[in-house]
Amino acid sequence: MTRDTKSDNKNEYTLTALAELLGAELVLRNGLTDATDILISGIAPLSSAIASQLSFCASAKHHAELIATSAAAVIVSADSVDDCPVHCLVHKNPYLAFAQLSHSFDLRPKPALGIHPTAVIAPTASIAEGARIAPGVVVMDYATIGCNASIGPNSVIEASAFIGDNVTLMANTNIGFAVKLGNDVRVDSGTVIGSDGFGYAPNPQVDAGHRWQKIAQLGSVVIGDRVEIGANTVIDRGALDNTVIEDDVIIDNQVHLAHNVIIGRGTAIAGCVGVAGSSTIGEDCTIAGGVCVTGHITIADKVTVLGMSKVTGSIKQSGTYSSGTGTQEISGWRKSAVRFTQLDALHQRVKTLEKQQKD
Amino acid sequence: MTRDTKSDNKNEYTLTALAELLGAELVLRNGLTDATDILISGIAPLSSAIASQLSFCASAKHHAELIATSAAAVIVSADSVDDCPVHCLVHKNPYLAFAQLSHSFDLRPKPALGIHPTAVIAPTASIAEGARIAPGVVVMDYATIGCNASIGPNSVIEASAFIGDNVTLMANTNIGFAVKLGNDVRVDSGTVIGSDGFGYAPNPQVDAGHRWQKIAQLGSVVIGDRVEIGANTVIDRGALDNTVIEDDVIIDNQVHLAHNVIIGRGTAIAGCVGVAGSSTIGEDCTIAGGVCVTGHITIADKVTVLGMSKVTGSIKQSGTYSSGTGTQEISGWRKSAVRFTQLDALHQRVKTLEKQQKD
Amino acid sequence: MTRDTKSDNKNEYTLTALAELLGAELVLRNGLTDATDILISGIAPLSSAIASQLSFCASAKHHAELIATSAAAVIVSADSVDDCPVHCLVHKNPYLAFAQLSHSFDLRPKPALGIHPTAVIAPTASIAEGARIAPGVVVMDYATIGCNASIGPNSVIEASAFIGDNVTLMANTNIGFAVKLGNDVRVDSGTVIGSDGFGYAPNPQVDAGHRWQKIAQLGSVVIGDRVEIGANTVIDRGALDNTVIEDDVIIDNQVHLAHNVIIGRGTAIAGCVGVAGSSTIGEDCTIAGGVCVTGHITIADKVTVLGMSKVTGSIKQSGTYSSGTGTQEISGWRKSAVRFTQLDALHQRVKTLEKQQKD
Repeated sequence: MTRDTKSDNKNEYTLTALAELLGAELVLRNGLTDATDILISGIAPLSSAIASQLSFCASAKHHAELIATSAAAVIVSADSVDDCPVHCLVHKNPYLAFAQLSHSFDLRPKPALGIHPTAVIAPTASIAEGARIAPGVVVMDYATIGCNASIGPNSVIEASAFIGDNVTLMANTNIGFAVKLGNDVRVDSGTVIGSDGFGYAPNPQVDAGHRWQKIAQLGSVVIGDRVEIGANTVIDRGALDNTVIEDDVIIDNQVHLAHNVIIGRGTAIAGCVGVAGSSTIGEDCTIAGGVCVTGHITIADKVTVLGMSKVTGSIKQSGTYSSGTGTQEISGWRKSAVRFTQLDALHQRVKTLEKQQKD
Repeated sequence: MTRDTKSDNKNEYTLTALAELLGAELVLRNGLTDATDILISGIAPLSSAIASQLSFCASAKHHAELIATSAAAVIVSADSVDDCPVHCLVHKNPYLAFAQLSHSFDLRPKPALGIHPTAVIAPTASIAEGARIAPGVVVMDYATIGCNASIGPNSVIEASAFIGDNVTLMANTNIGFAVKLGNDVRVDSGTVIGSDGFGYAPNPQVDAGHRWQKIAQLGSVVIGDRVEIGANTVIDRGALDNTVIEDDVIIDNQVHLAHNVIIGRGTAIAGCVGVAGSSTIGEDCTIAGGVCVTGHITIADKVTVLGMSKVTGSIKQSGTYSSGTGTQEISGWRKSAVRFTQLDALHQRVKTLEKQQKD
Repeated sequence: MTRDTKSDNKNEYTLTALAELLGAELVLRNGLTDATDILISGIAPLSSAIASQLSFCASAKHHAELIATSAAAVIVSADSVDDCPVHCLVHKNPYLAFAQLSHSFDLRPKPALGIHPTAVIAPTASIAEGARIAPGVVVMDYATIGCNASIGPNSVIEASAFIGDNVTLMANTNIGFAVKLGNDVRVDSGTVIGSDGFGYAPNPQVDAGHRWQKIAQLGSVVIGDRVEIGANTVIDRGALDNTVIEDDVIIDNQVHLAHNVIIGRGTAIAGCVGVAGSSTIGEDCTIAGGVCVTGHITIADKVTVLGMSKVTGSIKQSGTYSSGTGTQEISGWRKSAVRFTQLDALHQRVKTLEKQQKD
């Protein structure tokens, strides 16, 4: 059991090739005029990068690490070139450049090209060329899998689902009946898209209490292009209309989006967020981790909601919002929590004092 | 890649047939005496329904939409018939009637009848007639699958589990060892029932710190009839006794019910709720989204807990409860949050002022 | 459909054998000198145990139940022997002894020894002897499965993953590329380890808004020995460095640990906790259910955070911490919540009163 967990493979590039990939200007040190002999086999933070690795300086805050770095080369903006002790890839947005280059060093393999013999593909399903269908995948009637899509092991694509081009689904995902995923969508493991919304009509019983009459969830989920969805997240299908995730939305793990939710273009939703039914979140919003959004409300464009806030009504103005209280040591917190329940009474007492003062 | 995501199939019924299905009285417009020529192929809200669709008017609040609807017909209560411009299906509970009819328009297919050849069924398992076992399903020793049950792709039914009649499990579900599901239960994708409770005894070590000695979770999960459970939810098995979900409970997505929790008949639990070990929630309760309930407490019958509340002690009286604070713009919130930590001091200052006033 | 859900099998031991297993002293009642005729077929709480079952008295709080128990025998500490009306297994830590013995009564079967014919094992994968690979499992290239490991049905072990000895993975788990699990690790159903961290660089567009440039998540997840992880939990791989879970950590269901989180040795994390990226939690901490921890902070060793707290900054001192407010009846809560938003104004009013008082 001593075999290393990683294969010995690594992706290695010349510095010249990486500069070309980015369209970055090369500034070489030590009088070098040619970077084709400089081999880069990884990418690392400024402080831990070694001589075979590339790094990046995303902001002036990292100046101290930049001047001390042992990286082979650093992606820097033009105004940091002079401070960089090693070779430079000059780019106007080093963080974006790093993000783009990072994929060149990703060793995680995709499933093999074609359809694994253990996958179960309905005869009426349509699998485009270049698709990768891993072992144990189930693709049901009339489902469509786009060009170069990759479907991870033991995933289930239900009937009439539409998976766009270049979509990546990781392991054990479930794309429900008639759900539509645009192009370049990525869905991480264990995520369910197109589960039933939580819709029931109370059905009074003669005896006592009631039963819940389930409402068939006849809508679907429509997901735009370049949407990213994390692991073990759930997006419910709509009751009558669709649940809609617009282009360029990014969604983290353990998120719950209920039926008929609409998420506007470019919005980011962090882990453990829950959005109740029929709520609409605008474009370019940031919903931080653990936020709960009540149903049937609207959040405007460019709204940031800080972590673990409880959004109980519509937010009509762009801005940053929060709720709740910060962490305190237990004895202080206990007092504050008790006083919170007496807040209205305290208010009345202050009012009385003010009145007495005036009199 | 231009094929539509939905098949061209639709479910179409005469208005007469739908009235009979509901036991609803038909009130026809335009002098018609017979509705057998009126074909209905869908159901939609009042405001968006088109001439081939049925709609419903669930409350007087929708009066404006009712009088302007373009639906072919509307399910209405007797006192709304005069306001309805189109054919009426008269029913004493239009919302319930809609819920019942909605299933007639559900196109989502079930797995094929019988056992798919890729399913792995233990020889000692018992599969009743009419069951539908999808591809990749694993059914282990001594498990029982009831009549007309439907087990979604890649689901795992562990040894000695008991799945009642007419149960529907969607994709990638896991029903653990000896877990019992009553009749007419529905479990959405990715949900786990019968995982181990979080039970450990601290085991002091000679060196430093401790280790956790796992306690085998010897109880099971017993789920009543007509229980509905959403996607990616988890219900743990009991430590010594069982975890119990009574009849007619509905549970949403991403819920966590710990070991030995008991949920009373007819209670609704919305998304992202967590209930810690050995807590009991009464009958006909509504636990809104994101609520956390601490362990070893009891919540009475007919209690409503509003979204994202933190329930830290038993609730002994029926009623509506909440905790936390609402969302504020960030600068106001920051001040409130700081002042919260000083609340007890503020109280003392008011007390001092009151004393000085009196003196 | 009347077959019992449990098989008739049970595990039965003589009281002598159980005493030996624990290294416990036997104190017999009724003049018995030999316990080899006393058969124990289960373990139950003091109040419900029957004459064929063993029980345990974990603390003096259970004195009333102890003196009334109908158990065959009770695990007790030396100072409770006189109060115990039945046979005693005397142990210095009865709760720990119970935890150890509980496994002797666990009837839940493991997958069969060896590799099920429906499992898909890459030719370059390495499966040690004694491993149990259930139906539908997928093990990809260069993955390593340790001695006596048990991989539950339809689980997916990705390329280059390393699964230590005696690891148990339940159903539908996903262990990602190059993820390393130490020895004696247990992962419950539906859990994903090694999903991508939520890392994106904003990419300004010419038209309007931005797109998100995904950052390849090049780190992995490294999990120590004896770590226990619940169901439907997610642990993301690191961006550049690894996400690290140290030895003896226990993690409950529905937990979200983001990229580059570090959890110190022996820490317990309850259900529904979310920890944002790059935060470090110390050793021997207890993070109760529903807590959210913001990113890039540090929590010291031996910190307890109470349920549903929001940790927005580093915690530098061992101790117990909380945030938020307790549950109130709705009308009182509404007033408190409104007054919370006016807290700073109230403070100013009290200040003014104090000033006027002085003048």
